[in-house]
Amino acid sequence: MPNFELHETLATDTVEAVRWPLCRVLLMNDCRYPWLILVPARANMRDMHDLDPGDQAVLMTEIDRASRALTGLHAPDKINVAALGNMVPQLHIHVVARFRTDDAWPSPIWGAHTTRPYEPVALDNALRSLRAALN
Amino acid sequence: MPNFELHETLATDTVEAVRWPLCRVLLMNDCRYPWLILVPARANMRDMHDLDPGDQAVLMTEIDRASRALTGLHAPDKINVAALGNMVPQLHIHVVARFRTDDAWPSPIWGAHTTRPYEPVALDNALRSLRAALN
Repeated sequence: MPNFELHETLATDTVEAVRWPLCRVLLMNDCRYPWLILVPARANMRDMHDLDPGDQAVLMTEIDRASRALTGLHAPDKINVAALGNMVPQLHIHVVARFRTDDAWPSPIWGAHTTRPYEPVALDNALRSLRAALN
Repeated sequence: MPNFELHETLATDTVEAVRWPLCRVLLMNDCRYPWLILVPARANMRDMHDLDPGDQAVLMTEIDRASRALTGLHAPDKINVAALGNMVPQLHIHVVARFRTDDAWPSPIWGAHTTRPYEPVALDNALRSLRAALN
């Protein structure tokens, strides 16, 4: 089996929050939305149906867990879950807390407006509360 | 338990292809993309994490099955899977076959350009081949 390596675009755009049995749980460095990216640590996966059935089942439980953590932290109006990957070919699943007041609502967030990285202190705070909720 | 009823927007925009153990499998009436919508037949669900763990596990197998059917029929460049629901509050999962040549690539399809309904004969043909692949 080839080794899993995080795609460089994902590595650049995110900060690792925790590692779960299947996925790296990454915080997107964009303070406009509480936005996690789950990356199954399996080499050469592109679509969800590339995962074997056991990994698919674990992925669903990890999506559930990430969704509940964001809901507990932020009380959003909606959670958006999406595996798109048209640009970054490594399988990754977006789990995003959405609010009626956010800048893209009710549209999807991808491609809407420009990324706004966290200030360093805000990023530390976001990671601290996130890790407490995710662990 | 209240009865499940398909949301009127989904009923208007789609044609039912088949019913699986958990989901209604709907064909979006938009010939720009091979586009399925899976709706778990459970009342009052909004987010994937509203489903109980057993239903979540079945949902993942049905997403897999829908993805493979579209892949077998259309050999797309990518499958996009998304539970958004910012506008239609009933839980529904998009499973969309994407092509490097489609009109929204590489962006997500939602909100890109205008829906183009199938011609009646094309809709019949799409449903026939889809039902053969989904059953």
